Amino acid sequence: MSAVMKKDAAISGKKPSAEVRHLVSDLFAEYAHRIDANELERWLELFTADADYRIVPRENVEQGMPGILIWCDSRNMLRDRIESYRHVNEYNLHWDRHVIGPARFVAHDADTWTVEASYVLAQTAQENGETRLFSVGLYRCEVRIEGDAALFSRVAVIADTGLVPTLLATPI
Amino acid sequence: MSAVMKKDAAISGKKPSAEVRHLVSDLFAEYAHRIDANELERWLELFTADADYRIVPRENVEQGMPGILIWCDSRNMLRDRIESYRHVNEYNLHWDRHVIGPARFVAHDADTWTVEASYVLAQTAQENGETRLFSVGLYRCEVRIEGDAALFSRVAVIADTGLVPTLLATPI
Amino acid sequence: MSAVMKKDAAISGKKPSAEVRHLVSDLFAEYAHRIDANELERWLELFTADADYRIVPRENVEQGMPGILIWCDSRNMLRDRIESYRHVNEYNLHWDRHVIGPARFVAHDADTWTVEASYVLAQTAQENGETRLFSVGLYRCEVRIEGDAALFSRVAVIADTGLVPTLLATPI
Repeated sequence: MSAVMKKDAAISGKKPSAEVRHLVSDLFAEYAHRIDANELERWLELFTADADYRIVPRENVEQGMPGILIWCDSRNMLRDRIESYRHVNEYNLHWDRHVIGPARFVAHDADTWTVEASYVLAQTAQENGETRLFSVGLYRCEVRIEGDAALFSRVAVIADTGLVPTLLATPI
Repeated sequence: MSAVMKKDAAISGKKPSAEVRHLVSDLFAEYAHRIDANELERWLELFTADADYRIVPRENVEQGMPGILIWCDSRNMLRDRIESYRHVNEYNLHWDRHVIGPARFVAHDADTWTVEASYVLAQTAQENGETRLFSVGLYRCEVRIEGDAALFSRVAVIADTGLVPTLLATPI
Repeated sequence: MSAVMKKDAAISGKKPSAEVRHLVSDLFAEYAHRIDANELERWLELFTADADYRIVPRENVEQGMPGILIWCDSRNMLRDRIESYRHVNEYNLHWDRHVIGPARFVAHDADTWTVEASYVLAQTAQENGETRLFSVGLYRCEVRIEGDAALFSRVAVIADTGLVPTLLATPI
């Protein structure tokens, strides 16, 4: 976690260019869209091959305890997870809807930006159309930028809301 | 709906200029503000004369079924609706509050951008100050840009949350 | 409140430069982050020494009634409030999570921009991990820009949701 602990870039140090801001904004918008539209295979394309994706309870992060709800340390591992989800679930029983706040540019190292953004994830039951706050929290990400392309090399979902692992079928 | 089905501009193809991004961001901010401030007559000014505004349940969009909750195929028709709402309702019984996520630039054709954004709409009862999630969903929009002005030529509100038509007095 | 009543800059009049947009976006992102991370002393650093911070019920704003829930008319007064909060509360019993919508640039005067943004503030009880909508509303701000630095000289939190003053320990 050392990269995310660097001194805040937003306050002191190098600021992102307009191009980097747009790439990161587009990447978060695509991330949310592809989960919400249930395009999980295309969501995988937003990650580098060596990407690390994990969902961690905020409690564990703040107390320095281990405890990870989901951890995939490569895109292939994330793909396996999506594929097994597809085999088990023929029908999606809820709809996801993410609203993501403005990106916070935390640190910068060579071609990688550490970026955070808050999220609200609402789920709507398809059976009755009722919506509830499923999870709120923070994305702590590393975004690798090559030319005019940006991909996530790391996404840590730090979830404030308590999550029941068995209900965590799709990513957050 | 053909325009919105084009290949994603955010990933391949032409990207919006910084100017287009700012115009679209401002347009969404004004859209939310004017509904939330109950300035519905000024909200109309954000649309082209030939604009199409509709609210559609997500279920119907995904299953290719007809079923539209509200449909106005011109700004005049939308104006009529607002005016009749004003005659019926002397007092507003709730306050709206939209929070809109980052814009996703989907496609581009001449002077028109197809843009999507997720929304959360909370309503607060003025009687007791209680807030609830009234609707979450997606704006699928066409934004017509002329010089330094941007207007909506189409807004399809694709609502995840089930909506009772009689409670749909004001736009979403 | 005269400055915030000026004609909308977003529609007519001067528009913010890309640099101003980025500074304001970063400032809101930092504002949310520092409250949510319980870094309240660093949150103070986002204000000018003469800053005015207040939380006002939307009802009072709309009816032109006085009624302010919290009012600090300088950064020192805000610091006193944070310090006394720290002495009373050894443990934080909830986690805050803000999601802030796109900034709306309302007016401009010399080095100060009047800017608004909608917010959703979710609170999660640390005891059981349950999340609720604690407050939704609007930030009506004045942002003072000097060179490449931006600070809040005024934040009026206009809260739609009814708030119990005794529960208002931390800022919104």
